[in-house]
Amino acid sequence: MEQLERLFNPRGIAIIGASQNPEKRGHYTISDLLRWGYEGDIYPVNPKYDEVHGLPAYSSVLDISGQVDLAFIAIPAQYVPDAIRECGEAGLAGAVINTAGFGEVGEESLEDELAAAAEDANVRLIGPNIQGADFVHQHVHLLGGIRTTPGHLGMITQSGNMGIALSVDAEDSGTVGFSYNIGVGNETDLEFYEYLRFLGEADDTDGVVVYVEGMNDGRAFLREARRVSREKPIVAYKSGRTAEGRESAMSHTASLAGDVDVVEAAYRQAGIQPLDSVDLLVPVAEALTTCPIPDGPNVAVLTDGGGHATVTADAIERAGLGVPDLSAETQETLQELYELSPNLTNPVDVMGMSDHETMWYDTARHILEDPNVDALLLTGGALGYEECWWTHDDTGFDVEPERDLGIARKITEMVDEVGKPVVFNSLWDELGCSTALQYLSENGVPVYEEVDTAVAALKALADYGHHLTHADEKSDFDIEADENANSVIADAIREGRTTLSEFESKTVLAEYDAPVTPFELAKTAEEAVEIADGFEKAVAMKIASPDIVHKTEAGGIKLGVEGEQSARDAFDQIRTNASEYDPSARIEGVLVSPMVPNGIELLVGVVDDPEIGPVVTCGIGGILVEAINDVAFRALPVTEYDAREMIDEIEAQALLDGPRDLPAVERDELVELLRTVSTLVANNPAIEELDINPVVATEDGLSILDSSLELSAQ
Amino acid sequence: MEQLERLFNPRGIAIIGASQNPEKRGHYTISDLLRWGYEGDIYPVNPKYDEVHGLPAYSSVLDISGQVDLAFIAIPAQYVPDAIRECGEAGLAGAVINTAGFGEVGEESLEDELAAAAEDANVRLIGPNIQGADFVHQHVHLLGGIRTTPGHLGMITQSGNMGIALSVDAEDSGTVGFSYNIGVGNETDLEFYEYLRFLGEADDTDGVVVYVEGMNDGRAFLREARRVSREKPIVAYKSGRTAEGRESAMSHTASLAGDVDVVEAAYRQAGIQPLDSVDLLVPVAEALTTCPIPDGPNVAVLTDGGGHATVTADAIERAGLGVPDLSAETQETLQELYELSPNLTNPVDVMGMSDHETMWYDTARHILEDPNVDALLLTGGALGYEECWWTHDDTGFDVEPERDLGIARKITEMVDEVGKPVVFNSLWDELGCSTALQYLSENGVPVYEEVDTAVAALKALADYGHHLTHADEKSDFDIEADENANSVIADAIREGRTTLSEFESKTVLAEYDAPVTPFELAKTAEEAVEIADGFEKAVAMKIASPDIVHKTEAGGIKLGVEGEQSARDAFDQIRTNASEYDPSARIEGVLVSPMVPNGIELLVGVVDDPEIGPVVTCGIGGILVEAINDVAFRALPVTEYDAREMIDEIEAQALLDGPRDLPAVERDELVELLRTVSTLVANNPAIEELDINPVVATEDGLSILDSSLELSAQ
Repeated sequence: MEQLERLFNPRGIAIIGASQNPEKRGHYTISDLLRWGYEGDIYPVNPKYDEVHGLPAYSSVLDISGQVDLAFIAIPAQYVPDAIRECGEAGLAGAVINTAGFGEVGEESLEDELAAAAEDANVRLIGPNIQGADFVHQHVHLLGGIRTTPGHLGMITQSGNMGIALSVDAEDSGTVGFSYNIGVGNETDLEFYEYLRFLGEADDTDGVVVYVEGMNDGRAFLREARRVSREKPIVAYKSGRTAEGRESAMSHTASLAGDVDVVEAAYRQAGIQPLDSVDLLVPVAEALTTCPIPDGPNVAVLTDGGGHATVTADAIERAGLGVPDLSAETQETLQELYELSPNLTNPVDVMGMSDHETMWYDTARHILEDPNVDALLLTGGALGYEECWWTHDDTGFDVEPERDLGIARKITEMVDEVGKPVVFNSLWDELGCSTALQYLSENGVPVYEEVDTAVAALKALADYGHHLTHADEKSDFDIEADENANSVIADAIREGRTTLSEFESKTVLAEYDAPVTPFELAKTAEEAVEIADGFEKAVAMKIASPDIVHKTEAGGIKLGVEGEQSARDAFDQIRTNASEYDPSARIEGVLVSPMVPNGIELLVGVVDDPEIGPVVTCGIGGILVEAINDVAFRALPVTEYDAREMIDEIEAQALLDGPRDLPAVERDELVELLRTVSTLVANNPAIEELDINPVVATEDGLSILDSSLELSAQ
Repeated sequence: MEQLERLFNPRGIAIIGASQNPEKRGHYTISDLLRWGYEGDIYPVNPKYDEVHGLPAYSSVLDISGQVDLAFIAIPAQYVPDAIRECGEAGLAGAVINTAGFGEVGEESLEDELAAAAEDANVRLIGPNIQGADFVHQHVHLLGGIRTTPGHLGMITQSGNMGIALSVDAEDSGTVGFSYNIGVGNETDLEFYEYLRFLGEADDTDGVVVYVEGMNDGRAFLREARRVSREKPIVAYKSGRTAEGRESAMSHTASLAGDVDVVEAAYRQAGIQPLDSVDLLVPVAEALTTCPIPDGPNVAVLTDGGGHATVTADAIERAGLGVPDLSAETQETLQELYELSPNLTNPVDVMGMSDHETMWYDTARHILEDPNVDALLLTGGALGYEECWWTHDDTGFDVEPERDLGIARKITEMVDEVGKPVVFNSLWDELGCSTALQYLSENGVPVYEEVDTAVAALKALADYGHHLTHADEKSDFDIEADENANSVIADAIREGRTTLSEFESKTVLAEYDAPVTPFELAKTAEEAVEIADGFEKAVAMKIASPDIVHKTEAGGIKLGVEGEQSARDAFDQIRTNASEYDPSARIEGVLVSPMVPNGIELLVGVVDDPEIGPVVTCGIGGILVEAINDVAFRALPVTEYDAREMIDEIEAQALLDGPRDLPAVERDELVELLRTVSTLVANNPAIEELDINPVVATEDGLSILDSSLELSAQ
């Protein structure tokens, strides 16, 4: 940490590639530092010059005699590794490398050289291929002509323009800002998780905002986030959300982006709030860092009439939050306050029936103190009408902004006392005319222009509160095995195979006590008859071959086989079909299993995400897999809590409950299977993909009908 | 229309309930009219006063000798009907009734009296139970201390506060505004569709913005919208979107709100653009009224680097728009323009590689002219960097806003020449600092702060263009039958029954040549055996009784019955079970049908929506109906085009295509079934609900297995 502290709070900065040309980065970076109050020393480095900007210039960082901790580098890519070696010799802690032209344009070997140079020289690198960085409170503004809006959020961004956009969002909000604006670039040395660790420790940073396209080490980031999110909220936008987006991400940075749904599920597991839009990052971070964290998802709405009640309730429900009824006690109290009103339950619409203080403070307080309520959203024409319109249009009425300001003060005190979040969505906010709204937003009561933004903030608050309550029950993301524990897998690896046969994968699952439908391998027709007879019911027969993946296509499956002759015929037919389909296929035999009655078909699997490693998936299986794509994800290892959350996240809950006369899914058994699969994969790091589909819910519990298992090439 | 023209452009206004108390609506409505430039005469009416606001007061409108066309009414509810009668006698065209206290608080008879008074007196009513109305260009500002931002959008709103919020949105945009702001209130006389008709004709109105909770006559509105939307775009937010929202809508107005999905589907059918958020109404209306309407859904993105390319492509794809590759020609041209760049396909990320004019005009023009491209989104740090930041932070560089302004001018000219829409999402927009961006937004190139808003505007543009191309192929919403054409239905009505038996509903469907699985009614076991034998395969047998709806629960279903004895046993068992289940049930017999092989199960039905009348629905059926809720809706009568669109809207298209070894759904046949059902219901207005579920896709086409039909009580 000490080295990073030097890097982020440098006593002196060397500008490598300093220039006398005012249009060059090596020039105006110096003027930025000079005029924006950087208090350390600035050392232009360029053998061509004696001075730059009135400062003496050096041929090399090695010539600098003063204390210098950080280099800003803006020289052509091929000279950067040498520059870093010199920085190391000169004892610098780190460098911000603006230069592009490394891995992102195919120059991987140059980037490798840079990484090696940094390691040898013990110089930590921010970048390369970045607009720059901004250590705001230290006045180390290295973005080129731009300063980040100051405040207490740390920003880690994979796009310089996005960093500026977030800074502009903060400036526009007027209430929040950033302590650090760090471009990650190619992550050649310092990576996302290391920046997060630093920001987690930084005293001037209350929360972290992340814009990410793809990380080098997503699992390290999850581990770090799990720790940091206990103390400081983290919001993230993961881009490359769609096929089109991903395509663009690939050309924009040299990193592999995983499926966004997978990564976002893992983020939630680690306590990060993934958001649907970059435009939500700053407003939601504002709420998370300034509001009390609520105990539950139930939001009350207070409005002064009109459609805002309806529109807000719509948005809250759409976000998956609750709009609870108020307690009988609160309803009575409000009834007394508003004698004429027929209906004052949630949303509470007081239709301008009283004075401002009664509406926006007394009523708000009664509602906020209601035990059914976890958070309060005030919407409509709250706190601004007179100031915004009467002044605006000169009605001749006396405007008393002091009155609304007094109410605002009491609301902020109420939030502290009651300890539940209050959020405003006043129609006056857009005009920027209300002293009271301004006061609120500066004192822990966020004010949003749009309903959906306010609701997104409330949703993140509720989700974060929920996470904090259950953080200990969730995955620690640690997978420790380095050898493959299972003998079938170990054998396959020894034989250089990466695909296991169905028989092998079922054997592996059975060894871990997964509920595999009984199965036996018949090598001859006689064996098939004997096995089928032993099951005492109709059987399914399937070709067993490591080389035949599409068994149906190969004519390798017979279902509902009953009786000796049928079993014999089926065996022969399957063998013949398989040989015709692929004469060179190795045939283990024919797999015989008892038929399982119709039931809800589920899918359980593991995928190795390129960004965050092994991830368990669970959802609706069979023919519905692609048609409805209703699956949940969690990073390994999954805890019992993780597994239960996954099952609850499946949207087609009605299917799990057993529609018509189908048996319901035994959720405890499914939790157990998810845990088993997690353990299996954690114990066998060679597993790259495991697919259990379908596993059928029967009267007697789950029954795995088919599975496949792929190993990574060793 | 003439009467409405007098109402909306009154030569004189009577204020009924004029007051000397400055806090009363009857007082400051007069001062609003006086100071805001209303050019007609103002007549305070109140028998208590001789003058109000320096104007002579009248005891009654009957005493006014000057020309008066409109009354503003702010007197207690019980006096309003009399006041309207007097308005009629005095020859007024209409009244804006601010007063509440009618149907919305249970005073239905008073509201009926008001409606009758208006009809007798030939006075058209806006309201009652409204904040007011604003005929902006006529300076008839009747909202109480508030003026609507002027412009060329007509607004029809069911919430006064929402009307103000939309006006504030327009003021904040700085570019659009309203010609009319009409509160509909209880729709006691004038209704949504009549306001829409008026705005359709109004010369100062280019488009219409609708905020609706529930309409009295949604079908009349659809018919009107179908006509008006050919000339002027209409955007709408339908609230009460969710159960919670609906609950609030019920207490807020005295209207019945239908299911939002149903209503929105019908809106689209009529050419209205329903939006997901009230905050989108104004920005999307801006695009629809100022941009060229595109020919297709394909959007190109041009950005100057960073994550904006990725984020924007994400959002465009999420919205269901396309991000097409540029033509080879355009790619070559761009390659020449940017020699160094490896990859200039869509999104085009030029990473600040050139001067502003090359980036934002030349490049934009090449892209916009590409035949693959229907619309262009410019994003990132477009047109504002120097003006916003260099000035802001005093870099010492010369700022030339004229240069960016010149580019902006050329872009607006390009839009006119090329005839495709261009939309900006510049990160500088929030700061309001760019002369160029301001110029663009004032000249037909909308500039949005948020990516999602820009994409919502592009989506509405594409959808509106698509509608205009196909408007003639869509429903005219006319259902003309008033007698029930079908004899089975006519018989049931005569017998006073509202529920048809399965036998009856299948008979009705078969008469309309719907693909009902063959069925016969067996009254005895012998008949059952004979019928089953005739089908020459296994049969399904079901109890036929108008009194037994839950046939499975009653033990009234036997499937896969084969052979004489089995058929006999099944008949007897079903009869016995039914008698035990409900001894008083009338039993028609047992319905016998051949078994149909497994296949994708669909649902086709008709529901009578309280707001817009009969609606056809089509989607995934069987046990998946509630689990995945994947259905599409269209208002009756559906055209072939409507039916095809419905089928395309089903999300689980993979199921329709026949996954694994299941037969695909014959789409033409499904179109035919939807048309048949539409005709059936149009010919028989007594049908309140028709449910065909499942209809199974087999190798031989669709096969209806079960149906039910409910009639309205006559």
